Amino acid sequence: MIVVLKPGVCEEKKSQLTDWLAGQGLSVHPALGGSQTILGLVGDPSRLDTSLLESLEIVDSVKPVSDPFKCCNRKFHPDDTVISVGEAKFGGGHFSMIAGPCSVESEEQIVAVAQSVKAAGAQVLRGGAFKPRTSPYDFQGLHELGLRFLETAKRETGLPIVTELMNSKHLPLFDNVDIIQIGARNMQNYDLLKELGSVKKPILLKRGLANTLKELLMSAEYIMASGNEKVILCERGIRTYESTYTRNTLDLSVVPVLKGLTHLPVVVDPSHATGHAHLVEPMAMAAAAAGADGIMIEVHNDPPHALCDGAQSLTPEQFAHTAGKIFRIREAMEG
Amino acid sequence: MIVVLKPGVCEEKKSQLTDWLAGQGLSVHPALGGSQTILGLVGDPSRLDTSLLESLEIVDSVKPVSDPFKCCNRKFHPDDTVISVGEAKFGGGHFSMIAGPCSVESEEQIVAVAQSVKAAGAQVLRGGAFKPRTSPYDFQGLHELGLRFLETAKRETGLPIVTELMNSKHLPLFDNVDIIQIGARNMQNYDLLKELGSVKKPILLKRGLANTLKELLMSAEYIMASGNEKVILCERGIRTYESTYTRNTLDLSVVPVLKGLTHLPVVVDPSHATGHAHLVEPMAMAAAAAGADGIMIEVHNDPPHALCDGAQSLTPEQFAHTAGKIFRIREAMEG
Amino acid sequence: MIVVLKPGVCEEKKSQLTDWLAGQGLSVHPALGGSQTILGLVGDPSRLDTSLLESLEIVDSVKPVSDPFKCCNRKFHPDDTVISVGEAKFGGGHFSMIAGPCSVESEEQIVAVAQSVKAAGAQVLRGGAFKPRTSPYDFQGLHELGLRFLETAKRETGLPIVTELMNSKHLPLFDNVDIIQIGARNMQNYDLLKELGSVKKPILLKRGLANTLKELLMSAEYIMASGNEKVILCERGIRTYESTYTRNTLDLSVVPVLKGLTHLPVVVDPSHATGHAHLVEPMAMAAAAAGADGIMIEVHNDPPHALCDGAQSLTPEQFAHTAGKIFRIREAMEG
Amino acid sequence: MIVVLKPGVCEEKKSQLTDWLAGQGLSVHPALGGSQTILGLVGDPSRLDTSLLESLEIVDSVKPVSDPFKCCNRKFHPDDTVISVGEAKFGGGHFSMIAGPCSVESEEQIVAVAQSVKAAGAQVLRGGAFKPRTSPYDFQGLHELGLRFLETAKRETGLPIVTELMNSKHLPLFDNVDIIQIGARNMQNYDLLKELGSVKKPILLKRGLANTLKELLMSAEYIMASGNEKVILCERGIRTYESTYTRNTLDLSVVPVLKGLTHLPVVVDPSHATGHAHLVEPMAMAAAAAGADGIMIEVHNDPPHALCDGAQSLTPEQFAHTAGKIFRIREAMEG
Repeated sequence: MIVVLKPGVCEEKKSQLTDWLAGQGLSVHPALGGSQTILGLVGDPSRLDTSLLESLEIVDSVKPVSDPFKCCNRKFHPDDTVISVGEAKFGGGHFSMIAGPCSVESEEQIVAVAQSVKAAGAQVLRGGAFKPRTSPYDFQGLHELGLRFLETAKRETGLPIVTELMNSKHLPLFDNVDIIQIGARNMQNYDLLKELGSVKKPILLKRGLANTLKELLMSAEYIMASGNEKVILCERGIRTYESTYTRNTLDLSVVPVLKGLTHLPVVVDPSHATGHAHLVEPMAMAAAAAGADGIMIEVHNDPPHALCDGAQSLTPEQFAHTAGKIFRIREAMEG
Repeated sequence: MIVVLKPGVCEEKKSQLTDWLAGQGLSVHPALGGSQTILGLVGDPSRLDTSLLESLEIVDSVKPVSDPFKCCNRKFHPDDTVISVGEAKFGGGHFSMIAGPCSVESEEQIVAVAQSVKAAGAQVLRGGAFKPRTSPYDFQGLHELGLRFLETAKRETGLPIVTELMNSKHLPLFDNVDIIQIGARNMQNYDLLKELGSVKKPILLKRGLANTLKELLMSAEYIMASGNEKVILCERGIRTYESTYTRNTLDLSVVPVLKGLTHLPVVVDPSHATGHAHLVEPMAMAAAAAGADGIMIEVHNDPPHALCDGAQSLTPEQFAHTAGKIFRIREAMEG
Repeated sequence: MIVVLKPGVCEEKKSQLTDWLAGQGLSVHPALGGSQTILGLVGDPSRLDTSLLESLEIVDSVKPVSDPFKCCNRKFHPDDTVISVGEAKFGGGHFSMIAGPCSVESEEQIVAVAQSVKAAGAQVLRGGAFKPRTSPYDFQGLHELGLRFLETAKRETGLPIVTELMNSKHLPLFDNVDIIQIGARNMQNYDLLKELGSVKKPILLKRGLANTLKELLMSAEYIMASGNEKVILCERGIRTYESTYTRNTLDLSVVPVLKGLTHLPVVVDPSHATGHAHLVEPMAMAAAAAGADGIMIEVHNDPPHALCDGAQSLTPEQFAHTAGKIFRIREAMEG
Repeated sequence: MIVVLKPGVCEEKKSQLTDWLAGQGLSVHPALGGSQTILGLVGDPSRLDTSLLESLEIVDSVKPVSDPFKCCNRKFHPDDTVISVGEAKFGGGHFSMIAGPCSVESEEQIVAVAQSVKAAGAQVLRGGAFKPRTSPYDFQGLHELGLRFLETAKRETGLPIVTELMNSKHLPLFDNVDIIQIGARNMQNYDLLKELGSVKKPILLKRGLANTLKELLMSAEYIMASGNEKVILCERGIRTYESTYTRNTLDLSVVPVLKGLTHLPVVVDPSHATGHAHLVEPMAMAAAAAGADGIMIEVHNDPPHALCDGAQSLTPEQFAHTAGKIFRIREAMEG
């Protein structure tokens, strides 16, 4: 950490600060020059409150020089983490597709969608049983029954399943779930994140609507520091001033940025980001070209009658078409 | 709800759509004119997925005409809700101040702060026992012990207390808490909101970092529709592109906007919004002048040694000065 | 335009409003139903101030149903506009690459860069002679001399040139420029836009940092309505809350959205959006995969000594590598 | 400026960098500690490209320690700049009100409004003659005729006038204008800013929709470094994700922040920020309570028939009421 002092601070105050910092177990390395004094702090500054230091009268600014995330930091773990479930692999050059409906609505529906997305090349089935909805008056999912239908679809197709957990009380119901999704709204529900540390399943952690990449990595850190290293990060669009033509703004530059900062795999959800079926294919292709380790796409057998997010769902036929184009993009990247 | 059709849609498709809408229990009132057809839908359109309708080939756009929030809507409940705890009243022309440290650190600390903020005119004591922190490595609060210290401060001063709940499992510990705070990060933790419906205490609901006012009201609606009508809304700054000089952007226009939309009281937290002690007083005064029903301010007896958010805390002396200025603003408004 | 009246408005006020609207030359089509009255307005509502109507006591809301942009609207001009300069074509399935340094620094530099980007497949040379800089103390470009050097590079390589115009006074110097760029900061400099109507050259119009797509299209409309239909739209990143790891947020979903709304070609500038050379290749590939009609990339023969934006420039070798990958993406899309 | 090197950089590369920096005329002060080397640079680093330094292989990050703005920096000019026109004074504890219509529409209109706002306590008359409009099809102002009507109103009431300049070609028409306004869309029209350096009138510089405070100050710097030190800064709302209930988000914390960073006066325009007449009074009061040096409010004698922005205009009666409340707030602050 670097502490920049205000110009013209007297020696007495400087040495008071230096003594106080030393008392916190830090060694202090001053760089003097002209009117400005800069202190380099070495040691473990994690107990220091940056904004507190900044508020001291003689301090101009404080600048951290090390990343606050450890477990997920690529600096300390240079090789890609590869996460495998069934035949799906994410990371380390592997790319997989997750597909399925926003909500599980019936056994027939989820089995039919599972069969069609498997035939088109998807390796993981998605489907919501517990649905976070902005309005208390909207359909909230089939809950336990939805999980049972997902299990049937898994048995019939062999596809591993991913579904969202909103409350740790429901964990006992998730025994046969292969990947647990934490939604954007719960990305900073720290109590929930901590409980995932003792779960032995991969976690698909979605970036919150207005969360920075550092915050996303710190939330991954909560899970990893609690004992579960299998985290997949997911970009699903951020909230910006533009919301007329797309629901959110898909921030694809996070793909190469995150892959530089962390060894964890990064997948992209173009369905929730855009909110419109006709934008899913171009953005899925763009995500693959940007280097994503996987794509998550909503597919519904009958979008006009979907109970949730029908407008952004592809039909099975559209998904098969999109999947074909994504495979060609992937080949072009490797070629 | 209004459905605008694309120009030149044939009569057959129009009547198919009209029939389908009628089948959903809606009566359809077409307004024909020039090349454009507009359908007015009357009935309960809550089961209709707006974005789904919008995705139909013949539909140009769909525009809701009624608010999705009911319980908190001023249209159906014109009089201000007044929430009283101890000597504090929020709403209906009443204004109260909540003050105290970010975190409870010790019995001595919280009792001393409580005494000083009471002397300066605060009617409610705040203090965090369970702290949501971005990093798993940061101080997370004293938990149950912190609640016990708050109770001591309440006993010694008579001030009612407000503190944050992050997990419904902790509710049994909150028996002596007077107002339960739901933090910005949990504003859309719907399972938690639903459980607050059966709690017989006021809830202080903070706006999430990037949540719209409609979303804030829908989260209040979750609590109210579950049975608890005592909700206080709190603006605490939103995330914008400007984060160099202030932590977040305090959005004071929400005060008059919310007071038009809802009968619930609205308080403002200038401490978390700005992140800097020297900005708290001007923004607290501005909040009072904008018509807020209360203010929540961080006060710490020793900000440089605060375990959390010391940089934004006022000293008891600074708080007394700020409180005096706020009282003068309130008088000027009534005068 | 649709006007939604408040519930319970009396007939007299309704007919006053209807008469007033009719007096503005609009025919009014009421759709009555339940407690709500909806008026559909047909005619030319362009002289009506939407926000004014909204402010009337009896009006609940006003919703436009037609797009405010005409000349650039795909509804009235379904075929893609194709813009050709030299061997470059943008739109209608054609894809071209623009490359070159941020600033023209010397004749040797610009000629050398022009030769290398041509060899790598670029069809247009870029280079700034008039540079908009945040600080008045930063290098502002070589001005007229820079334009002369660009012309030399054009003569030597045959590449058409694109460069930024900041002030219409400089137009006489731009005779040999092939495409005039209007930068993000001048996207709503309406006086400048109007003067481009009488210029017989394509205009590359960059989206402003916080401008909506509608505003971008309205700025294109200023140029087109003034007489110049040759406008190329350019996405170059928007300002969001995330600015630690990328300079701006590249909003690639605008590519398919704009191509639906307008017949004008859309190019993407990943260099300014990301601000970091190592992010340019993945985002350029993503832009091509999203369906962009072209890419604009900064290339400098010696980035560490560039006078402007060196950190985001590719070397000629890096550009050749990136260009090869983009060609493969384009083939995969057509294959 | 501070340069943080990556851990484990060899001595040879370090000394190459140090030599190169010294060659740029900077003296280099290394602070060594643990695995991290930090270089403090002293001298004039303005010619160094920060992002370039950051792109070097051995550099982890670069952190500026001094402000890029000089002329407007309070550090070098501790006393408030006071700007006087007619009886209005801005800064140094003085507070003045600017009021008038968005657009000048006729001589009768502007004279009538001028008389009424003067009677209510306004010291400056505003009125637009050249109007920047998003659409080329909207009313663009009366141009020279509008300026003549403003002059009449000035003659009749004695009020100095402020009006917007969009194009330096129009400067000769502005001889009798007292304060020249530069609108939000032209805040970074640098050629225009430079030409204001030779104008001997105060400039009211509005913050752009998505500009940081640093950018606002750098734009003031363009004017001041070109020779005109009389700049008034104006906050008029920024673009955020919330635009349903307010047009923009009024960022009042900039008032105390700017007053700390600069000696220039700061005024607030609540009319454009909110876009709704009923929000103007509470936000004007809040701005005064936050410490603004002045307020700019739109007033129209007949808002429903205003040619521009009628929805956000107060009537003269409403303005008189608001002005009275603002005076009481100002008294309370001084009391």
